Amino acid sequence: MLKPLFDRVVLRVKEEEEKSIGGIVLAAAAQEKPQIAEVIAVGPGKTTNHGTLVAPTVKVGDTVVFEKFAGSQIKVDGENYLIAHESDLLAILD
Amino acid sequence: MLKPLFDRVVLRVKEEEEKSIGGIVLAAAAQEKPQIAEVIAVGPGKTTNHGTLVAPTVKVGDTVVFEKFAGSQIKVDGENYLIAHESDLLAILD
Amino acid sequence: MLKPLFDRVVLRVKEEEEKSIGGIVLAAAAQEKPQIAEVIAVGPGKTTNHGTLVAPTVKVGDTVVFEKFAGSQIKVDGENYLIAHESDLLAILD
Amino acid sequence: MLKPLFDRVVLRVKEEEEKSIGGIVLAAAAQEKPQIAEVIAVGPGKTTNHGTLVAPTVKVGDTVVFEKFAGSQIKVDGENYLIAHESDLLAILD
Amino acid sequence: MLKPLFDRVVLRVKEEEEKSIGGIVLAAAAQEKPQIAEVIAVGPGKTTNHGTLVAPTVKVGDTVVFEKFAGSQIKVDGENYLIAHESDLLAILD
Amino acid sequence: MLKPLFDRVVLRVKEEEEKSIGGIVLAAAAQEKPQIAEVIAVGPGKTTNHGTLVAPTVKVGDTVVFEKFAGSQIKVDGENYLIAHESDLLAILD
Amino acid sequence: MLKPLFDRVVLRVKEEEEKSIGGIVLAAAAQEKPQIAEVIAVGPGKTTNHGTLVAPTVKVGDTVVFEKFAGSQIKVDGENYLIAHESDLLAILD
Repeated sequence: MLKPLFDRVVLRVKEEEEKSIGGIVLAAAAQEKPQIAEVIAVGPGKTTNHGTLVAPTVKVGDTVVFEKFAGSQIKVDGENYLIAHESDLLAILD
Repeated sequence: MLKPLFDRVVLRVKEEEEKSIGGIVLAAAAQEKPQIAEVIAVGPGKTTNHGTLVAPTVKVGDTVVFEKFAGSQIKVDGENYLIAHESDLLAILD
Repeated sequence: MLKPLFDRVVLRVKEEEEKSIGGIVLAAAAQEKPQIAEVIAVGPGKTTNHGTLVAPTVKVGDTVVFEKFAGSQIKVDGENYLIAHESDLLAILD
Repeated sequence: MLKPLFDRVVLRVKEEEEKSIGGIVLAAAAQEKPQIAEVIAVGPGKTTNHGTLVAPTVKVGDTVVFEKFAGSQIKVDGENYLIAHESDLLAILD
Repeated sequence: MLKPLFDRVVLRVKEEEEKSIGGIVLAAAAQEKPQIAEVIAVGPGKTTNHGTLVAPTVKVGDTVVFEKFAGSQIKVDGENYLIAHESDLLAILD
Repeated sequence: MLKPLFDRVVLRVKEEEEKSIGGIVLAAAAQEKPQIAEVIAVGPGKTTNHGTLVAPTVKVGDTVVFEKFAGSQIKVDGENYLIAHESDLLAILD
Repeated sequence: MLKPLFDRVVLRVKEEEEKSIGGIVLAAAAQEKPQIAEVIAVGPGKTTNHGTLVAPTVKVGDTVVFEKFAGSQIKVDGENYLIAHESDLLAILD
């Protein structure tokens, strides 16, 4: 299991066909459009310069919109995941 | 529904013909001119380095002027939206 | 009416012929010279990293000198305005 | 023995064949994919601008995922190690 | 009259022949050499991120050495002035 | 004698043949590999933005690994030294 | 007399032949090598973002090593001086 560090989150990116569910349409051709993903795991948050821990906002199971080229890709047990900073997430879709 | 994160806002950009309403004219040819939009949703605000939450200034329903190339575009239920940082907003038009 | 956000100000730029009034002459050819404008509206100020609101210094009606390429232009009711950060203003002319 | 300074960690990078253990497959061809390594030593942490020591999160023996081009390589007693900042680590694999 | 804003100062740059007075010689050819000027007006100072006002050090009438390409030029009542940040000033000449 | 300022340290870089001692082998050809050196002198440390002095971690006599192109070289009494920031040091070798 | 502002210092750079005194040899050809100078005047120090004044470390009369291309040159009463930031100084030579 992937346990993200600091303010990072682990995302499972929703593939094209999935993106028509719930009315969210990201034109396939539109490279720079933001992406949709499910939050799989959330880090403990980041400690600021003042030693204050800023807890994460999103939680496991949220569907989120995120910046297209954010994060690093990794494959675990045959599944593709993305590890990104929470600040790369634009909005929650509910 | 799009719930913006941190200091972000969701905007519905007003198209060209709409821009003549209320006396606001953005010359179509003027690419770098700022844009006009309606605020659809507002994030909780951003936590500073000191753990202080800076609440957003604008509210849902405000008409705002914003920097031309700001934010990320997304289509939800056939509608085009822009997710931008509140700091990309220049002024409120009332 | 334009209500600037944060530390921004709305300026009405004084055209060339106006610039000879009050002894202020900005050589037309001198592209990089600072510009002269009247302050039309002032934002609430900017909240620092510590949550302290730094109030604006200039007020409506001031004549100011500002950096040549600062701000974004917008036309409202046929009038050209510039929305700039207060920190782009160099001096008050009285 | 290598004792990393500040917020650095010493990693022993897992070679390709090792990466199929525990289901973690980093496609050999995918240059930019993150890497897998074992934590060999952990620094004392970093002192912030406020004199607060931020202790490290990972511990010796953890298996971690890290950014591909992070850190500096060094060979000690014939073994290859990488000295990286803890912030280059993306997640713990358990 | 020019009233500089924040940490800015208004300077009247001393021309070449003036620079031999008081033993200060800036070789005319040396483009990158610092310049000499008289302080004409001083701003109120700059508010730090913590809301603390840092008062200016120099005062009207000081002769100062400043970085060659600092500031913005402006002509008022036929006189050339330079509006610069106090941090562009290197030293006081007395 | 060289007394380094702030958070700097004076290092005597170990030449190639020395690097085989204690099992540390830096392939001569590997230009970007980190370097090994002995700490000759340590500065008082650096004062943070909050006026807090952050004391140095390393001490005279430590053998350290440091980033290849860090610091400035100087020759004193025929000996080559390097003056670097403590943050350029990666680890202590004991 | 030159009174440096903030965290600046005035240095009299030691010419080549002087550099053999006290065993400090900076190979003339070595352009990027640090330079040697005498401290002629020291500024009051710099006020941090928190309003704390960080007093200077070096004092008038110290011989210092500094980064080659640091500071601005100025000639006063026929003498060449350099005005640099104290942070450009690497070490004191005693």
